Amino acid sequence: MTHYEYLKSAFAEVQSLQSVLSLLGWDMEVMMPQAAVENRGEQMASLERIIHSKITDPKIEEALSNAKCLDPWDTANLRSMKHIYDSYKAVPVDLLSRYAKHTAISVLKWREAREKKDWQMFKPHMEEMILLAKEIGQAKADYFGIPIYDAMMQTFDPGQTTANVDKYFKVLEKNLPGIIRKASEKYHNKPIKHIACPEDVQQKICLELMRDIGFDFNRGRLDKSTHPFCSGSYYDLRITTRYNEKDLTQAIFGVLHETGHAMYEQQLNTDLLSQPVGQSHGMSIHESQSLFIEMQVSQNPQYLKYLTSKLNGIATYEELLQSVHHVRPSFIRVEADEATYPMHVILRYNMEKALFSGNMTAAEIPDAWNEHMKEMLGITPPNPSLGCLQDIHWPSGTFGYFHTYSLGAMIAAQLMHHMRLDIPNLDEYLEKGDLKAALKWLKDKIHSKASLHFSAEDLVVNATNEGINPQYLLTHLRNRYISQAS
Amino acid sequence: MTHYEYLKSAFAEVQSLQSVLSLLGWDMEVMMPQAAVENRGEQMASLERIIHSKITDPKIEEALSNAKCLDPWDTANLRSMKHIYDSYKAVPVDLLSRYAKHTAISVLKWREAREKKDWQMFKPHMEEMILLAKEIGQAKADYFGIPIYDAMMQTFDPGQTTANVDKYFKVLEKNLPGIIRKASEKYHNKPIKHIACPEDVQQKICLELMRDIGFDFNRGRLDKSTHPFCSGSYYDLRITTRYNEKDLTQAIFGVLHETGHAMYEQQLNTDLLSQPVGQSHGMSIHESQSLFIEMQVSQNPQYLKYLTSKLNGIATYEELLQSVHHVRPSFIRVEADEATYPMHVILRYNMEKALFSGNMTAAEIPDAWNEHMKEMLGITPPNPSLGCLQDIHWPSGTFGYFHTYSLGAMIAAQLMHHMRLDIPNLDEYLEKGDLKAALKWLKDKIHSKASLHFSAEDLVVNATNEGINPQYLLTHLRNRYISQAS
Repeated sequence: MTHYEYLKSAFAEVQSLQSVLSLLGWDMEVMMPQAAVENRGEQMASLERIIHSKITDPKIEEALSNAKCLDPWDTANLRSMKHIYDSYKAVPVDLLSRYAKHTAISVLKWREAREKKDWQMFKPHMEEMILLAKEIGQAKADYFGIPIYDAMMQTFDPGQTTANVDKYFKVLEKNLPGIIRKASEKYHNKPIKHIACPEDVQQKICLELMRDIGFDFNRGRLDKSTHPFCSGSYYDLRITTRYNEKDLTQAIFGVLHETGHAMYEQQLNTDLLSQPVGQSHGMSIHESQSLFIEMQVSQNPQYLKYLTSKLNGIATYEELLQSVHHVRPSFIRVEADEATYPMHVILRYNMEKALFSGNMTAAEIPDAWNEHMKEMLGITPPNPSLGCLQDIHWPSGTFGYFHTYSLGAMIAAQLMHHMRLDIPNLDEYLEKGDLKAALKWLKDKIHSKASLHFSAEDLVVNATNEGINPQYLLTHLRNRYISQAS
Repeated sequence: MTHYEYLKSAFAEVQSLQSVLSLLGWDMEVMMPQAAVENRGEQMASLERIIHSKITDPKIEEALSNAKCLDPWDTANLRSMKHIYDSYKAVPVDLLSRYAKHTAISVLKWREAREKKDWQMFKPHMEEMILLAKEIGQAKADYFGIPIYDAMMQTFDPGQTTANVDKYFKVLEKNLPGIIRKASEKYHNKPIKHIACPEDVQQKICLELMRDIGFDFNRGRLDKSTHPFCSGSYYDLRITTRYNEKDLTQAIFGVLHETGHAMYEQQLNTDLLSQPVGQSHGMSIHESQSLFIEMQVSQNPQYLKYLTSKLNGIATYEELLQSVHHVRPSFIRVEADEATYPMHVILRYNMEKALFSGNMTAAEIPDAWNEHMKEMLGITPPNPSLGCLQDIHWPSGTFGYFHTYSLGAMIAAQLMHHMRLDIPNLDEYLEKGDLKAALKWLKDKIHSKASLHFSAEDLVVNATNEGINPQYLLTHLRNRYISQAS
């Protein structure tokens, strides 16, 4: 066996164990009885320990130093393996275990504090969380020789840099306020429409939409959970949603979003599925795929016509339009519209950078949050549960993630622009709910490339012949919410 | 860390991985999309390999030779650990992998052959399966210095011997034919009643019965699968059933049976749950618990009164009685009544002994089956799918298992006899569906003992002050199906 063959077999086993971890996570959210939570934690910790020891095995290091490849996919695979190995070696294992333990406590305390709208109660846990995250981030920064916040972003978005994201976000920060102001005025007198619909009817519609998009139910399923998500991989894709009987579009567009994630996984190549290079790219690209289906395709007026035909008279086209298209500054990120959403993301991104560069302490979070919110969206949260306590990201120690939401939105708009050039009659297809051509295009340009390209930027350049360009998102927002709004 | 502490931590991790395997198995039957089956096989094989290497680690052997304990639970734990270690060391790992691979093919071919009622088609796979099982059995027999069939039974029923089972089965073989003949005559003119009921109503009834028995839904759940089963453990118990809308009692007594298994697991002690000694005993005891709830309790005429009250007029007490109490020789084991069931088991037990002692070849299976069936129940299967192709056990290489069904039935009857002595007004409780006293008795005598005692025999002696005695089952059958039948 060559060094490379040895690595392939070792990483295939790791991949298999990681897919088991993912299933345990799905089961925990969807099926597991309540009292099993601690037991599930132990099962997952056992697997994490085994994965850690398999990756940091000295034989892996030796094989990595000696393996040679010529084929570009194998070369990229080797680079991904090395990156995984380095990420594990960079952080002392006892630090990871302190972090995991504190995360469990911190999330628990956060739920309670959010319920009670009480920042003070959560403050010490947030402080400890930031200390631990900083220690891990610094260990990675030292190992890779890059700035700490860049190191933190690597976990979710390989190859990403603060310099890049700063550049994109500066363009958004400059242009979005004008768009939001104009659009808000347009939508000012239009109340948001909520369409009531029984749960079983909603579920039937969601399943039909998934099927029409091309989701393969032989390799996946749809279930219910408190927070919608997509997990699993090529052969076994699991997406979840929640149903609000007073508001049909929550489930519909939630499911369409997750189906975007799912199609990315279901359209990977099977050749290298067990290898690091065969996996979907980081979260910026993943989010571009979910937002492509949710925002670029499904909330497109043409597709909304098709969607209306699926509702069997529950709502008219105008009601549907009124239910999904609106712009209005609001406190909660996950409920925000497409135009104000990036402002929520930029707020968190800037605060994270400040926290980890030493320019802000945990104690300063609530005031800083409220100031930024006032400045960016002109509103001030009346309590911390509508402000800095709203997201699970910080309580769970997930830093360096937020930017991927808005990079995803930018990339989705850019892909749509280029897809339209290649598929001139796309709108006709959308009106019929026919996404075959669109999904083939995505497969060719993005899905089939898996992790061949190192960074999201490289992958986008390969797909569109230009770097990530925030102008496409701005144009999309102007078209949809200013020119088009009637 | 002492040697024993080291072993405890190593076996706790193995236990955790085994519980993950069990969840993967549940998910495969209940949730997993079809096309993921091969992928799931790889996940499970990865975990099996890791478990194998953890148990056969030379450090385990060293710790086992040096560990010393005084406490009886620790001593029993050490004995169980040694037994697990020995069972893994006894069989070459490549033989196990050949066996696993053939099992997958063999089960597939069996499904096809059973569908086509074609023994010839399955014969070569059965031959290969028996060869492999014999090789594994012989390796264990040589390692432990016991007869091959005794070695094969250890996997499912620790401490069991052919000598013991022969002795019990001889008593049944002598007495059952007379009971079956008399009971069959009594029930001859009574058609079996089938009670129709919609699935959602059946499910509601089943959940209520589980709750009334004491099943803790914070630590478990009920789902649907093609073949009912119980899996998981103390914190996370999963039972399944299927619903036949033409026959309510299939689901009800299926669920009651699995709830018997579940209560055993849910009433274990928490102190040693992560250790081998803290696990439920082998399948003879496990089956005694499911049959205790299904046959001794739920099909007791007093409990059937309570059950009638739960049906909201769907059936009368007499109809329910007519639906569950009957005796009639039939071809399919899993559909057999309580009196003829042991004959099915003895047939398989005798044939397995003959196959592995070299007194019978795979080619002789169909004729031998039909002869035995004629001899024991007076009927001849019209095709092999109603005969030797009916069970998944042999196609899946599960030999040495069948006896546990009837040992379970014997032990259940014996436990009921002794419980009645300790709880004189048991029938009054049953009529009210109140199983608190019965379950406390089972917890004290059986559940809380986990694997403290080496063999099922020892555990029964501890609980009832006498060895396993088939007379209790015979008396129970005479009382229920001859004296009582009206």
